[in-house]
Amino acid sequence: MYQFRNDYSVGCHPKVLEALTAVNAESVIGYGADRYCKEAADLIRAMCQAPQADVQFMIGGTQANFTAIAAFLRPWESVIAPASGHINGHEAGAVEAAGHKIISVPTAANGKLTPAAILSVVEECKDEHLTKPRLVYISNATETGGVYFKGELEALSQCCRRNGLLLFLDGARLGCALSAPHNDLTLPDIASLTDAFYIGGTKNGAMMGEALVITDPTLQEGFFRIKKQRGAVLAKGWLLGVQFTALLKDGLYFKLARQAVDMAQYLQGGLKNLGLPMMVDSPTNQIFPIVPNDFLPKLDEVCTYETWCKADESHTVVRFVTSFATTLSDADGMLKAIKAMS
Amino acid sequence: MYQFRNDYSVGCHPKVLEALTAVNAESVIGYGADRYCKEAADLIRAMCQAPQADVQFMIGGTQANFTAIAAFLRPWESVIAPASGHINGHEAGAVEAAGHKIISVPTAANGKLTPAAILSVVEECKDEHLTKPRLVYISNATETGGVYFKGELEALSQCCRRNGLLLFLDGARLGCALSAPHNDLTLPDIASLTDAFYIGGTKNGAMMGEALVITDPTLQEGFFRIKKQRGAVLAKGWLLGVQFTALLKDGLYFKLARQAVDMAQYLQGGLKNLGLPMMVDSPTNQIFPIVPNDFLPKLDEVCTYETWCKADESHTVVRFVTSFATTLSDADGMLKAIKAMS
Amino acid sequence: MYQFRNDYSVGCHPKVLEALTAVNAESVIGYGADRYCKEAADLIRAMCQAPQADVQFMIGGTQANFTAIAAFLRPWESVIAPASGHINGHEAGAVEAAGHKIISVPTAANGKLTPAAILSVVEECKDEHLTKPRLVYISNATETGGVYFKGELEALSQCCRRNGLLLFLDGARLGCALSAPHNDLTLPDIASLTDAFYIGGTKNGAMMGEALVITDPTLQEGFFRIKKQRGAVLAKGWLLGVQFTALLKDGLYFKLARQAVDMAQYLQGGLKNLGLPMMVDSPTNQIFPIVPNDFLPKLDEVCTYETWCKADESHTVVRFVTSFATTLSDADGMLKAIKAMS
Amino acid sequence: MYQFRNDYSVGCHPKVLEALTAVNAESVIGYGADRYCKEAADLIRAMCQAPQADVQFMIGGTQANFTAIAAFLRPWESVIAPASGHINGHEAGAVEAAGHKIISVPTAANGKLTPAAILSVVEECKDEHLTKPRLVYISNATETGGVYFKGELEALSQCCRRNGLLLFLDGARLGCALSAPHNDLTLPDIASLTDAFYIGGTKNGAMMGEALVITDPTLQEGFFRIKKQRGAVLAKGWLLGVQFTALLKDGLYFKLARQAVDMAQYLQGGLKNLGLPMMVDSPTNQIFPIVPNDFLPKLDEVCTYETWCKADESHTVVRFVTSFATTLSDADGMLKAIKAMS
Repeated sequence: MYQFRNDYSVGCHPKVLEALTAVNAESVIGYGADRYCKEAADLIRAMCQAPQADVQFMIGGTQANFTAIAAFLRPWESVIAPASGHINGHEAGAVEAAGHKIISVPTAANGKLTPAAILSVVEECKDEHLTKPRLVYISNATETGGVYFKGELEALSQCCRRNGLLLFLDGARLGCALSAPHNDLTLPDIASLTDAFYIGGTKNGAMMGEALVITDPTLQEGFFRIKKQRGAVLAKGWLLGVQFTALLKDGLYFKLARQAVDMAQYLQGGLKNLGLPMMVDSPTNQIFPIVPNDFLPKLDEVCTYETWCKADESHTVVRFVTSFATTLSDADGMLKAIKAMS
Repeated sequence: MYQFRNDYSVGCHPKVLEALTAVNAESVIGYGADRYCKEAADLIRAMCQAPQADVQFMIGGTQANFTAIAAFLRPWESVIAPASGHINGHEAGAVEAAGHKIISVPTAANGKLTPAAILSVVEECKDEHLTKPRLVYISNATETGGVYFKGELEALSQCCRRNGLLLFLDGARLGCALSAPHNDLTLPDIASLTDAFYIGGTKNGAMMGEALVITDPTLQEGFFRIKKQRGAVLAKGWLLGVQFTALLKDGLYFKLARQAVDMAQYLQGGLKNLGLPMMVDSPTNQIFPIVPNDFLPKLDEVCTYETWCKADESHTVVRFVTSFATTLSDADGMLKAIKAMS
Repeated sequence: MYQFRNDYSVGCHPKVLEALTAVNAESVIGYGADRYCKEAADLIRAMCQAPQADVQFMIGGTQANFTAIAAFLRPWESVIAPASGHINGHEAGAVEAAGHKIISVPTAANGKLTPAAILSVVEECKDEHLTKPRLVYISNATETGGVYFKGELEALSQCCRRNGLLLFLDGARLGCALSAPHNDLTLPDIASLTDAFYIGGTKNGAMMGEALVITDPTLQEGFFRIKKQRGAVLAKGWLLGVQFTALLKDGLYFKLARQAVDMAQYLQGGLKNLGLPMMVDSPTNQIFPIVPNDFLPKLDEVCTYETWCKADESHTVVRFVTSFATTLSDADGMLKAIKAMS
Repeated sequence: MYQFRNDYSVGCHPKVLEALTAVNAESVIGYGADRYCKEAADLIRAMCQAPQADVQFMIGGTQANFTAIAAFLRPWESVIAPASGHINGHEAGAVEAAGHKIISVPTAANGKLTPAAILSVVEECKDEHLTKPRLVYISNATETGGVYFKGELEALSQCCRRNGLLLFLDGARLGCALSAPHNDLTLPDIASLTDAFYIGGTKNGAMMGEALVITDPTLQEGFFRIKKQRGAVLAKGWLLGVQFTALLKDGLYFKLARQAVDMAQYLQGGLKNLGLPMMVDSPTNQIFPIVPNDFLPKLDEVCTYETWCKADESHTVVRFVTSFATTLSDADGMLKAIKAMS
């Protein structure tokens, strides 16, 4: 079976496991107050050119999203998010459980939010019988593989700052976004244009963990307490620091992301050559081919994948996701198998 | 100035004030445990043919909505509501502040929800990474004046019961809905087809107050405690019982609603005769004429009203609301004034 | 039956009813944006010598307490309160339902909090695995009738300011506190020593309503939205403004409180003369005589009252509460009846 | 330096690391739907003789506590817990952030709750202006090392069942509790006497993870959704299943716990022989010697530990915690070092 279900279906990269093994017997202070977390945080601050940033290691993405939003907002404030945003669907109402409304706005198929959509919500919410929008949530890459270009992120950032809105970037797949073919964004760009964002580990080589970077100093107060309150403080916090250091210090993180993106792009190109259209042209590690419905039982036999949505009566959009563990031989094998389906 | 801003811009009907005055000096037990609340509740149970119902007097609509929803749902459960539903906008995120996601669905201009829209949400939410829809919120009349016919409510009720969903009806303007020209719904119908609903007092002759009728016995447990917790228990609870008895015992409630509806219908007819189109043809006490933009400053001089939304570049939808206090002379005066604007 | 169950068992003072009646037919803008609320707020600002204060009319005490606390605190922050504080017991977990821990501290029988108790909590909570105390809740009068002297409130205020704590005063019975025999506190004192407090109407002549005075300008932002969100915005908001103006403009408020206090003090003195000890010597309108258990069935026949707690195997503490409606003849009658029980 | 700060200061037991390493490269389905979690859950159900139990792997203790409590309770319901209970202090208000009041009751120094204390709360809370107690939280071992005997747990269980209360047992240190010298409780006992409990991994050989066992079928509904909502679903969920299987299948879990307990008991005995009194006689892996204040700087040089509380002006209670990684030579070295301090 070829594995295209998601990018978190194997443990961690061998170098990460090696680093965890090396430190396993050592006695370390708990709750993230250790030198491994400090080392990783320093590295991230340096890579982001954001010496003022607070770096908080979180166990997973849902947790990072709702803990940050709960920490940053007052009770009457709400979140503007693309309708396809992860927080708006696949987190089981975590943001609402923390008391905040998500005002979702429709986007193009690539899932990217625009200043115009934000402004329209801001305008409507001047009415004080509504919540006050205070934070804009975007993800890069988006849930449909889209990436923001530098000019786009600058425009969003400017729109947010002019309207008293925080800009929060969900970077569960940030590695792949920054490794996309025409990407022109850098970590320092993101650190200077957003108020907080995270560098996803779970989907790019770590066993688990996301590094939340809170660049706005006014948002840093009290964060440890709310993190503890929301169950996001790992007793053995150093496990996260050790992993991020292993991933980030010699460029492993971007090497892994590039492998995932390269494999997805190779596969996408190959599928197009086989005549399969795409729901959206994705530059990252998630691709969305539209297949005839009768392909589905055959796909079930050769690979893991996800059914995304109906395209029309006789066609279905499926999602293939690659990861650092995907090989060229996996991609070639997959293309061959699909060719045989026609 | 003619008063068409809303249906809660005068105090209460004189008979209600008279009843409050009559009881003012009497010493009564607090928190709604008094005989006036019991009398009103008994009357409501009888009118609804729902002897098993728990009747809880609430101070206002937002409070009734979020307290009931908070009481009925478990933390992972969500609400399906029309996008135009009051809870989805003009309650400042009250339902989300209670921890629950509202899944809003688009509707026709009349704001009425359909079983098809419900089913589509139910289908999508079978995925356990999403919230579980558990309650369907509708309002009758809707926020744009629409009313549900009996067949429609039966279809919604059946759809809900088949899918494990509670049906909750916001009756802030229930009096007007049941007094609409072609209405075929009755209180007993509503009591038997929904799990809970309320009979709005604030907008139909009371000083304040809504009578929440919880027909489903399994939803009644613990309600007093959560009502207290959400600040919805009035110390002098009998003030609500006294008002509802005054409104309901001799049919005053429906007489007042009919007056409001009659005046709105008369006004709507007159405006149409003057050539003004309506955003939606409303059978209740809120009407939505589309006026040329240059009418707006002139309207500001003759009446209170609300700007609803833009119709096109040169036209605006405005909202006129009538109440029990609206007279034929108000309506005629208004028509005359508008005729003069053309 | 003599009425000593509580101070909210009759409607409102006749002058308040008169004022409500006078305005009943008038069309007024909703949600507290009217001139009656403005007039009352201006009057309160003037009486408090606090021109910067935001005055928000709330419907009841539980609502005032939890809405203010929810508005003022961040999610990881907690409240320090006397164990006997109303929010810690009789509000059905309203503060916790808004997400905040109450750290309760024991007090003397009079229910008064001391700086020492606050400091001990602050010290313990330096540990970041605990919540951060941010607001100190006191009530004046307390739940057992105690009042704070000016020196005591100054000491609490200073302690709070030195430790980054807000001081919030629940004034459900503020009228009686300020009318207590040796009271030396004034409204301007309270306004300058606390960050927010309220002037209770429900228990002192209003039909319902509390006037929340937010003196600290940094706490005022967003308050209308959260008030709406928590169901605390009365559609016909002017009803509250009208009542507070009626109560405050000619000193009626303090006249009513003085009557309640005088009657309670007269009764307390009389009961002591009859040989009944008090659980606590109360200077306000709630008194707590300790009676032999065999008095209880006799009391049930002559008056309404509350059983407070067991004193010992054969004695019970009961609570008698007076109000503006209590007359000298009620007090005398009561004393006579109790004398007859011995 | 001897390590006695806590029982979560090293990674995991080598066999656990070995198991994680063995599965690292394998592609596994996410979110705990995998065969490793199933294997571990089956093993736990068998060990507990509770075939009906739902086993949910959680990442940490705070998360397990508040997610379970949030899932089990309705908004107006509260928790009864010992004042020293972990949820009442060191979880930064997590239960209150989920909306529920904790009613804390004082206990003996061993931290054990009694039926009498529960009954007294139940009695007081019959008043519907208070929250309704619905769940009793205990921990075994307690935060001060105490363990419940079978008769005690039976009495608590009976008290809970008679009063409509759920019994929840925090088993962060369950291994040590069940390995304590005179313990007579078994996993099947706990499974049959409680409604839910967890088997702690983090503090007994796992890298991280707690196995929550929900024995009451009526509490199992919707648990995956709320777990997702609270950030408690690990994307690579199998990491938890793999660890619990490694710990539980050949008795490793109890072997590790016994080592921790033996070392603590040996140390406690030795310290007593040196003339040091204990705050409480602990049968588990946490001990609480009372040392002269001038020992503290010397202790800082030889070991890690925690200062627990003041004993008197000149003495301090300290906490030493052992773990599976503590050796006899550590204990002997420590005793020698302390002997030298006198």
